[in-house]
Amino acid sequence: MSSDPGKADRVLPARVAVVGLGVMGGSLARALAPLGIVEIRGWSPRETERAAALEAGVVHEAPEYWEEAVEDALLVVLATPLSAVCELLPRVGRAAPGAVLTDVASLKAPVQAVARRAGLADRWVGSHPMTGSEGRGFARSTPDLYRGARIWMVADEEASEAQARVAGFWRALDAEPVPAGAEEHDRLMALASHLPQLVSNALARTLEEAGVSPRELGPGGLDMTRLAASSPGMWADLLEKAPRELPEGLEHAAEILEELARMVRHRDVPGLTEVMEGTRRWTLGAPAVRP
Amino acid sequence: MSSDPGKADRVLPARVAVVGLGVMGGSLARALAPLGIVEIRGWSPRETERAAALEAGVVHEAPEYWEEAVEDALLVVLATPLSAVCELLPRVGRAAPGAVLTDVASLKAPVQAVARRAGLADRWVGSHPMTGSEGRGFARSTPDLYRGARIWMVADEEASEAQARVAGFWRALDAEPVPAGAEEHDRLMALASHLPQLVSNALARTLEEAGVSPRELGPGGLDMTRLAASSPGMWADLLEKAPRELPEGLEHAAEILEELARMVRHRDVPGLTEVMEGTRRWTLGAPAVRP
Repeated sequence: MSSDPGKADRVLPARVAVVGLGVMGGSLARALAPLGIVEIRGWSPRETERAAALEAGVVHEAPEYWEEAVEDALLVVLATPLSAVCELLPRVGRAAPGAVLTDVASLKAPVQAVARRAGLADRWVGSHPMTGSEGRGFARSTPDLYRGARIWMVADEEASEAQARVAGFWRALDAEPVPAGAEEHDRLMALASHLPQLVSNALARTLEEAGVSPRELGPGGLDMTRLAASSPGMWADLLEKAPRELPEGLEHAAEILEELARMVRHRDVPGLTEVMEGTRRWTLGAPAVRP
Repeated sequence: MSSDPGKADRVLPARVAVVGLGVMGGSLARALAPLGIVEIRGWSPRETERAAALEAGVVHEAPEYWEEAVEDALLVVLATPLSAVCELLPRVGRAAPGAVLTDVASLKAPVQAVARRAGLADRWVGSHPMTGSEGRGFARSTPDLYRGARIWMVADEEASEAQARVAGFWRALDAEPVPAGAEEHDRLMALASHLPQLVSNALARTLEEAGVSPRELGPGGLDMTRLAASSPGMWADLLEKAPRELPEGLEHAAEILEELARMVRHRDVPGLTEVMEGTRRWTLGAPAVRP
């Protein structure tokens, strides 16, 4: 964001429907509820999740059918895995004709394609919060999940009014909306989000196959395998639609690991030191030159 | 540990010398100082680090020569990179003839070999605290670094008395000493500690070469690249002495990354889901079967 948004930019719609009450949707309800100025309806395909959200007092209603949750809503947030977002979006558009629609899936081009085909390009604004958890379910949701998080926002030009509302919504939750193009966003995410996820899976699998237990890891090893506990359900969808930057990144990382293995075998300490000095500079925030 | 150590097992020697005042040594002095019952001498090859430790009030003396720091010490802790530990240990043994000697390097077989050659096997007890920081220098030390951390302890049988003292020292700092064999320990560390380190370096390098900035990472990507900022100085030593499990682990991880790349390219969602379900089970602590 180039400008510092004032209070006027932090605007909540009066009635919000949250479809999906896992970590993402549950945390959204938990963040909204204390603000007290919004009627929140939540829906989950699981009765236990609906009951948990009601009992936590973070939704006013949690009807059995999503159609009842979204009718009359001014903003519908689809907080489901990507495939469910793509399946539900056209139907939610019909069931909630007056609502601005958003979703929190971490790929945006597939959702944008669905929105355009369904004639919803004027009121769909894709959101991708750069936050999350390796846990799953309402039990792992937290009220602070979105605080300070960057929210990539993708929308067609005709949705500029809807985009302003969704941006105001995120700002009201102390998150930081930033506009992005769908393809550009997805290419970046394949590298910045999906690649680290799969590298964590690969490391965990390597350790398991070598007979190492998670209990034998130090803080570094635990950090590096935390993502390996991520919910396969959410990721399966994302990986199915992954842009080519993801397999390219995986192959590139594999090459670098093989290069490091060669250096270790040959006791090439200057080579290893050079690699580590380089990543140290990068990690500490030397400005990256974008291609 | 099979038994819960009582207070009697938490015994501090009256005079401790800490050789090296970086994150590991500095944190040790910071943890010891508030206990008030130990005279602490610190040494660093850098005058600025010695001055910083004195100014922080965590060492009583910080002489210019390490010989002055270790003379009369009852326990000397070598908190330097591995190569300096190997170089200093015989000389410290001569300069501090009455002291129990320990070090905190994360490989133990190379130090054990030096200790045996120098005739110090009866009073050297190698320690490897499963804790640390990607930062470097006294400025990044913290009093809580060792609290609750597992400390692998390696010693020959003739050092059993020294081992009891070093164990009591660590327990007094609320750490948890656990005996281990040197080679067994080093093989485990190559996988549980050094492999995650280099995987983080490889991921960071991949991201940098793809033009991704650290500022574009979410919490997961930041966790996965945190270790990539680790000090190359400390690691160069470890990598030079790395057991063969490290290059083997790197090559194995590279193979798995290539397998994942193939799965993503072929949209093999069931295969990806199976990998993720497997690492999720492992990460959440399913008992690992050691080979």
